This record gives sequence, C-alpha cells and structure tokens, in this order.
Amino acid sequence: MPKIKKLLVANRGEIALRIMRSAREMGIKTVAVYSEADRLSPHVKYADEAVCLGPPPSNQSYLLGEKIIQTCKDLAVDAIHPGYGFLSENADFARKVSDAGIIFVGPSPESIEVMGSKLAAKQAVSKYDIPMVPGMEKAITDIAFAKEKAAEIGYPILIKASAGGGGKGMRIVESEVDFEEQMQRAVSEAESAFGDGAVFIEKFITSPRHIEIQILGDQQGNTVYLFERECSIQRRHQKVIEEAPSAVVTPELREAMGNAAVGVAKACNYYGAGTVEFIVDEKLNFYFLEMNTRLQVEHPVTEMITGKDLVKEQIRVAEGQSLDFKQEDLKIQGHSVEVRVYAEDPRNNFLPDIGKLSTYVRPQGPGIRVDDGFEEGMDIPIYYDPMISKLITYAETRQEAIDRMIRAIDEYKITGIQTTLGFCKFALGHEAFKSGQFDTKFVERYFKPELLDDGLSEEEEQLMVALAVEFFQKDTAVSVKENIQPEITTKGNWRSRLK
Amino acid sequence: MPKIKKLLVANRGEIALRIMRSAREMGIKTVAVYSEADRLSPHVKYADEAVCLGPPPSNQSYLLGEKIIQTCKDLAVDAIHPGYGFLSENADFARKVSDAGIIFVGPSPESIEVMGSKLAAKQAVSKYDIPMVPGMEKAITDIAFAKEKAAEIGYPILIKASAGGGGKGMRIVESEVDFEEQMQRAVSEAESAFGDGAVFIEKFITSPRHIEIQILGDQQGNTVYLFERECSIQRRHQKVIEEAPSAVVTPELREAMGNAAVGVAKACNYYGAGTVEFIVDEKLNFYFLEMNTRLQVEHPVTEMITGKDLVKEQIRVAEGQSLDFKQEDLKIQGHSVEVRVYAEDPRNNFLPDIGKLSTYVRPQGPGIRVDDGFEEGMDIPIYYDPMISKLITYAETRQEAIDRMIRAIDEYKITGIQTTLGFCKFALGHEAFKSGQFDTKFVERYFKPELLDDGLSEEEEQLMVALAVEFFQKDTAVSVKENIQPEITTKGNWRSRLK
Repeated sequence: MPKIKKLLVANRGEIALRIMRSAREMGIKTVAVYSEADRLSPHVKYADEAVCLGPPPSNQSYLLGEKIIQTCKDLAVDAIHPGYGFLSENADFARKVSDAGIIFVGPSPESIEVMGSKLAAKQAVSKYDIPMVPGMEKAITDIAFAKEKAAEIGYPILIKASAGGGGKGMRIVESEVDFEEQMQRAVSEAESAFGDGAVFIEKFITSPRHIEIQILGDQQGNTVYLFERECSIQRRHQKVIEEAPSAVVTPELREAMGNAAVGVAKACNYYGAGTVEFIVDEKLNFYFLEMNTRLQVEHPVTEMITGKDLVKEQIRVAEGQSLDFKQEDLKIQGHSVEVRVYAEDPRNNFLPDIGKLSTYVRPQGPGIRVDDGFEEGMDIPIYYDPMISKLITYAETRQEAIDRMIRAIDEYKITGIQTTLGFCKFALGHEAFKSGQFDTKFVERYFKPELLDDGLSEEEEQLMVALAVEFFQKDTAVSVKENIQPEITTKGNWRSRLK
Repeated sequence: MPKIKKLLVANRGEIALRIMRSAREMGIKTVAVYSEADRLSPHVKYADEAVCLGPPPSNQSYLLGEKIIQTCKDLAVDAIHPGYGFLSENADFARKVSDAGIIFVGPSPESIEVMGSKLAAKQAVSKYDIPMVPGMEKAITDIAFAKEKAAEIGYPILIKASAGGGGKGMRIVESEVDFEEQMQRAVSEAESAFGDGAVFIEKFITSPRHIEIQILGDQQGNTVYLFERECSIQRRHQKVIEEAPSAVVTPELREAMGNAAVGVAKACNYYGAGTVEFIVDEKLNFYFLEMNTRLQVEHPVTEMITGKDLVKEQIRVAEGQSLDFKQEDLKIQGHSVEVRVYAEDPRNNFLPDIGKLSTYVRPQGPGIRVDDGFEEGMDIPIYYDPMISKLITYAETRQEAIDRMIRAIDEYKITGIQTTLGFCKFALGHEAFKSGQFDTKFVERYFKPELLDDGLSEEEEQLMVALAVEFFQKDTAVSVKENIQPEITTKGNWRSRLK
C-alpha cells in the first residue's frame, strides 16, 4: 500500500493550513502553492516547501493544473489534496493527476463526473430509491395532462420554464383552482421570453431547510455516514451558520437520510469524504439535491461531534487503507456550531468589504476552534472568496454551544473591515434560531441592518471613558487611552460597566 | 434557589480568564481583582468590572481576604470563585465569605479544613476503606518490633525520622537482611540530628506514578468521579505534562480508584469539584495521598474527555443545583494531553526565566485549546508562578493527541524568554512516554539539557537562508529578512527545507 510522504495542497487560506496541520500530525511533509497575492500568507510559511504558481486571479495560478502536476514531479510529491473550490471538483484534473502517477486525495474522476452533472447524478441514483423533489421528468405544454400530474404531486406546485434559469419564468401555484390559469400564463410567458413554451412542474417546498449528510467511503467499498449538518442559515444563497446535529432531525430521520446518502455514494462508487445535500420540508420530508465530491467548508462541525479528523480519513482512504471503524461505532457527542466570518458588510446587503485586518485577535478558551489563514496586519485580497475565518464552538448541548459562540463572537476583535460576526450574533440570539424553527429564508424573513447591535453610542462612549477614568484613577494608574479605548472601539464588554 | 448574577474571581492570569469565560456563557457578570503588577492583564480587561487590590506581592493584594469581601459588598457581588492557589484552600476565608452572605464557589469550610490536615484527612477516610501507603501509625525506636512490622508491610521499606522533613533522615531498606543495621543508623542519626530517635516505617514505592481522580459532588449528597488524570511527568516535584485517561489504568482499576475517590469525598461531606490524589506503584496498587479541595490547574484534560465544563458545574453546585447527570452517564471520549508552558529554562534546572513575551503566537486548528492570561509584548511578572499558558490537545486516540501536541508545540512561537515547550516536546517523543511506562522520576532518569532540540546550527542557518533566497527569488520577491528570519529564530518548520 502506498504511504504518502509528501503532500501538495492545491489551495490557499484556511483550508490549506487546516489540511497541512493534519498532514504534519501524520508525519507527512507538505508543499504549498500560492499566487503572488498570497505570498505572505500563513499557509505559505507553514508548509515545508512552497512554490509560487503565478499572479492572481486564479486562472493564472490556483487553477493551473498542469503547473501543479509539474511541481509535484519536480519536488517528488506523491499526493495532491485539492481542498474545496478551485480544482477540487474538476474530473479532468483528477484524471491527469492519476495519470501522472500522483495520488489524488479525493474520489475517482468518474465519481466527480457523475455527480457533477445533475442529469447523470439523477440517473445514477434512480435505482437506489433516493427521494427526489416530486415532479415531471420531462418538460411539457399540455395543460390538462399537467393538471393531472400536479394533483398527483400535490400542491403547492412550482412551474418553471424549461429554457429558463435564475428564477426567470417561475410561478408558484397554491391550489388546483388556480392551476389552469397559471399554467397558461407560464407557457405563454416562456414562449415569448425563450421561444419555447415547455415547462417543468414540480412540488414547491414552502419552508425549505438545507440539511446535508457527511459520508466517508474507502476503496474497499465500505461507506458510512457521519450524520447531518444543518446549513439553512444563508445569505445570498450561501451558507453562513452551520451546526451539527440539526435541531429538528430525529434519530429515525437521521438514519433514513444517512442511508439515503450512503445509497447516493454507492450509486457512483464513491470513496473518500463527500457530502450529500438534501432539501427538507416542514413535515420533515427530505429530497436529494446534489452531492459535493470534496471536503466542505463546514466539515469541522462534523469533526467536533464525531471526534473524527476528516482530512486524516481522506488521506488514509487515498493511500488505500480501509476505514477502521463501522457505522455502529459512530455516535454523536455534544453539539457544534460554526459561523463563517466573511469580510462583508451586513449593513450593505452583505457586499464584500475588502481591506486590512488592522486588529485581529481570536477568541480562546474551552470549546473554541478557529480555522483561518490570516494574521493581524494582513490584507484580505480582492481576488478570492472574502472568508476570513471559521469560528467553531463545541459543547455538551445545543444551548451551551450557542452561548459559547456568542461569548466567542464578543471576544473576536476585528477592526479595519466589516464582518459577518455581528449578523451571526443577531441570528444566534433570534428566537427562530434558538427554537430550531427556521429555514433558508431566515435572512429575508427576520434580518434588517438596524437590528444589528451597534455597540456604544457616542454619548455612551463618552460616559464610559469618564467612568473608566474615575474608576481606574481611584485605584491605580491605568491609562484610559491604552486600555479602555481599544475595548470601546471593538465594542467589547466594557459597555456593561456603564450599568 | 439563589441564582448567581455577579461573580468575583479572586485570582489572576489564565485561571481568572478561564472562569470568567464560563461565567459569561452562563450570563453571569464578572468582577476582576488585580494587583498593580497585573493591571494590563487580559483578565482585568475581560471582566465587566475590575478592582485593584494593591501592589504585589500577593500578601498585599490577592491574599487580602477582607478587602475582597468588602469589594463584593461594594459592587453587589453575590459569589466568589477562588480559582486555585491564593485563597482557594483557606477555610477561614471560605467561612468569612459565607458569613458575609456571599456564595463561596467551592466546598464547605469544614471540608477544606479536614482535607487541609494530613492527620484529620487520614482519620476522616479511615472508615471508608481507602487504601493508604502501608506503614505504622506511630513513630518508634524499638528495632525488633519495627523489623516484625516491616516484614508485615513488605520490602522495600522507607524509614523516616519523625522529626525530620524534606527527605532528611530518610533511608530505603531493600531487604530484611539489611533492616536492623539501617534501622539502628536511622534511629541514631535521628537522635543526633533532631534530638529525637523516633522513626516511622512505611512501604517504599519504587516506581511511583501520580494519578488523581476528579470528583464532583452536589449539596444534595450526590457524588460522581470524572475519571483519572495521569500527572507523573514532573520537574522539581511539580507537574508539567498531564493526560487523561492514563495509559496504564484499566477499566477495573479506574472503577476502584473512582469509588475510593468518591469515598474520600463522602468522608468529608464534600461538594463542588475536588481532586483525590493517589500514588500508584508498578503493580498498579494505589494509595491515597491527599485531596485538593479546589479546581486543579490540569482540569481541562478532564473537560476534554468528558465534555463537562467543570467551572460551570462548580457554579451550579454552588447555587444549590443538583448534578443533572449520574455516574453511568459519564463516558471517556477520546484522549487529552496538557503541557504547562512555564517561563523556565530547562537548560538551567528549570529555573524561572522572567522577561518580556517579545513574540507570542498561539497554535490553532483542530483539537487545540490554549488557556492563558498573556498577550504578545507583556512581561511575565516576577511575583507569581511563572506559568505562561496551558496547551491542551484532544483527539480520538492517545497517539493522535500526542502527535497533535507535537504539531502544536512546533506552531507555538514564543521569543524573549525560555520556556518548557522544548522539554515537553522531548518528553512526548521519548519512548518511555510513548509506551506509557514512566513514573515521577522521568526527568531524573531520562532528561539531560543536551537532549533538547537546539534548532538550527549556525551552519544550517546560513545554508537555509541561502536556500530560501534562491528558492523565493526564482519565483517571487519574498523578503528573506521579513519572512524567513522570524521562522528560523523561532525554530520553525523551515528546517526541513534544508533536506
């Protein structure tokens, strides 16, 4: 069996660093690649060797598959970990890596290919009895036939133009009495907009949750599921808070979803770590969405509740080792929450807020994990996803993990740019989140920028400084400027001293 | 039942901060006290309120019980957490706190008193069938009688002068043939040295391990044990590496020691968190040493393997709540190692090496916890225990927790002072540690300063800089001074780039 001795991480930032940490714990040497924009990044310094691929953007550096493979040859690298994004779900790259005699830490090119195509994925899983959102396989224009099918599927019904996309030409029909009229409109709209009146009809999920199952398989055909991650809190259709386990998944549902996910994996002969995404409705029916054939951003919450290091498992599977545990050995222990800290302004529709991390102090203490790839004083480059870090908490219960997260958010001191931290604190404190009764529309439904905690008002701030001066001078010579001011500007806990 | 709303932490540094973090997660306001030497410390900034007690040393500040109680009255504080050290095992202080109507987060003054006296503790536990180091209750001079007793106890035997102390007048007798002569010498030596020839005889533990059991009790009389901590790696008779569980404790031994520890707790009507220390011999016989009636420095390893937050449990018990779990609910999950990072020079007999933390960069990533009370640029004050931080790792297996710790030690960048990090790395990599076959004499037996990894030699360093210049210039304009040099001086991973 090949033992990986030197691993090239074809990625950047937090995930590159995270992968290298596990590799180093396994005694594997690491090679970083980087773009000129990232030359001072922690992942470059952390590696045993580092090679510059070229300038940003990615198509001149991180996406240069051939150059990465050549680097492996030059430096006697025996395996590549692609991380997430970039080349991680590129079947062609995976194939070229294998052809060059290098181990690709991920599934086979065939698995990537099948799951990369919605149609091929649907066909592959069809014999595994995986629930799909009920709907018609083919686009039609026949209103009477469509109405019959709609009654079978059950209302509400979503009508969407076959040629459409991005929500264009989509109509929701709440009940049968409206169906004919809406269908007629949809067909004629589709005709005039796309020159093709054919539409799909499918069940409309009123209150959808995004819940995914982590799976892990080896090359010997053993596949297990590592339970679910609840990823329904999203902004701009992208996840921002994740947790494991989900507050609404029962043991029975967990088993059913887990088995379905294993079925999806088996349908494409999957090995390595992968994620099967489901949409879950109000009545806890679940439907297969897609499979991500790589490590997910939010994998740490699964690591926290299972005790498994997913990167190490990926590497072992890539070496050809069998999983050394079975489904029945896996147990959920405690609860974990992750918030993604993005350089974005929640007051400005979560638009990226690029700049320098003037202050960057991580929270510490029990049950806290920070996965990041930046240091104080660094610039967040404009070329990449503006994620600064992932802040993960772990505790015995969901409530404690949430309380711990709020404490950690308060401790996290970032100045120089706007971040999603304040929004995450708002969400974690919201009744809908606390009760577990939320869906992917949380942000539209509940969030307004004015609900963010703005820290101290100008008046409060003055009052506080005066109070601090008086308080400290009575006892000792603490300098207000040096000690109090930084706490005020980062909205620290000194606020409560006003009360 | 009283709900604690505001907690004063009568301590400093890492433990003050650690306690405040749990309090904040519980929605409890915190009050810091501090000496003038600590006025810029993180624990002072972290608290909602802070009061200076006076100048160092401790007897003019942290030990001023009356002033601390008065502060509670002034600030409407309803509970005091004493941490460890300082006033934490002072029964008189605990009593005064209670008398002032303030909750003492700890056991009753009576429990502290009983366990604070070796004799009283021995008497209290006598009816609970707790194993003690076999020996005579009374000091004697009668050689024939002593020999008879020695035979009963079994060799090797330790003879120690009743009036002695600190190892003075101690003799080890390996077998019966030597006993009379050694006893005669011991008695006459004791007579000439102390004017009193009486000696104690007891069993000599050849290869002692220090293993302790964490217990937790409530005021309703429920007591559980949270398994053991292995604390045998010591320097200057003080713990420096701890782990849970112990590599040598079997499930049967764990249960026996756990039950004994619960017996010790019951013997003094103990409530709150406490630790029962045992000495364990080569054959895994265990003997009661003493009980520490407070939180221990090394409590985090227990938190990691049980998922319990011991500070929160202490606070709940102090409020009068019953434990909300039973012995059978507690399970060991994974493995945890803690190394204490002291400002000490392992090359100079572990003498304190006080100074400024010029560089201070904590390790991060999966399975790492750092409990500390310092920031980069701060001075380690000469007045207190020179512990900088506790570095804790957690993983599924002992081997993985150790590998993770070595990775974390390599990531920890501290310059400006010498620390125990290098020694800890040496110990963790030593065959005796890896195999679990070690005792409290590990340092004397195996450690020599020249065994420490000294980082790069001058020649290596020059070679590396040259290599780095060549390597980076080929690709991009990384400045060697800015990027490579700090890594060299902190003995980072760049070394491997030489190979």
